[in-house]
Amino acid sequence: MKVIVDICIVPIGVGVSLSPYVAACEKILISAGLKTVLHANGTNVEGEWDTVFAAIKRCHETLHEMGAPRIHTTMRVGTRTDRLQTMDDKVSSVKDKLAAQ
Amino acid sequence: MKVIVDICIVPIGVGVSLSPYVAACEKILISAGLKTVLHANGTNVEGEWDTVFAAIKRCHETLHEMGAPRIHTTMRVGTRTDRLQTMDDKVSSVKDKLAAQ
Amino acid sequence: MKVIVDICIVPIGVGVSLSPYVAACEKILISAGLKTVLHANGTNVEGEWDTVFAAIKRCHETLHEMGAPRIHTTMRVGTRTDRLQTMDDKVSSVKDKLAAQ
Amino acid sequence: MKVIVDICIVPIGVGVSLSPYVAACEKILISAGLKTVLHANGTNVEGEWDTVFAAIKRCHETLHEMGAPRIHTTMRVGTRTDRLQTMDDKVSSVKDKLAAQ
Repeated sequence: MKVIVDICIVPIGVGVSLSPYVAACEKILISAGLKTVLHANGTNVEGEWDTVFAAIKRCHETLHEMGAPRIHTTMRVGTRTDRLQTMDDKVSSVKDKLAAQ
Repeated sequence: MKVIVDICIVPIGVGVSLSPYVAACEKILISAGLKTVLHANGTNVEGEWDTVFAAIKRCHETLHEMGAPRIHTTMRVGTRTDRLQTMDDKVSSVKDKLAAQ
Repeated sequence: MKVIVDICIVPIGVGVSLSPYVAACEKILISAGLKTVLHANGTNVEGEWDTVFAAIKRCHETLHEMGAPRIHTTMRVGTRTDRLQTMDDKVSSVKDKLAAQ
Repeated sequence: MKVIVDICIVPIGVGVSLSPYVAACEKILISAGLKTVLHANGTNVEGEWDTVFAAIKRCHETLHEMGAPRIHTTMRVGTRTDRLQTMDDKVSSVKDKLAAQ
């Protein structure tokens, strides 16, 4: 089952500068062979369900090892069986509608 | 690794009445031996990371089998290494602060 | 326009104990005359759109005044025009389905 | 108070093709003079709190007028008082960390 996940990982108890932790997660997701697109409030990831969630688990484990005592993550998770749809397809679909107006 | 997840599963393309799908997920989570607390905008679940996410995957698979062509799920995922904390602890902690004011 | 919001406010840069901040928000929401239900990963709120979002803005302002340099909030926001539905209705609707199985 | 919001608006009860609705919201946000960045699972918006949330309210009103009987929106909302930070700053901050590794 293919999945597209928008993930935002917030370590708590490590001060206000979170980018080193986000960068560590980014590396984990990329090392897992996943396609990722970083944005201002999270990272979009595309891949097989098990690969994606194994990588997300490693993100939590790694951030705890880096010293974060508490982690608060939010995700949007999308699956569909009617057709294949990539992250690029989702963005193009909206842009086409905007261009047609 | 223990995890507390707040999950809200929204099947898309099956009309506006979503409660049969939410109930199906509730059954899956309970069958997995997880502690669950249903609320107005989701279900809180507590358990071991792998058990929780295996059950969530089954929710997606089951809703697709029930006819949902597309599923949009949102989650809040919390882990901590500084101390054990249950869902009940989290609610009590806030209620204690409110009572003390 | 009536709205049901599930809000989770996470102050960043104030350590790992967040319950004093959650309690402060709870008081603001209640003082605004809103119906609230606290749960393990947030608070469900029901009311008129403008009242709800004015109270949420006050939560952010108040937490900053309490010393939080950064705030990360997530919300689920639901509106519907087909029928009136309260938070209690949403929970009952799922519980009825579970009981009927 | 400046705010950065990541918003994902899902109309329910209008089938599986949601891009016309997302495009309508995109137009509303842009018409409000807000900076927006569309991504695969939502839109990032940057602006003054009141302007941003007034536009989000118009998105809900407009989608209901377009025929959506029910709308499920999720948001990540960030404010900070320690320093000004734009959406571009947030992405650059992570990319700099990745490049330095």
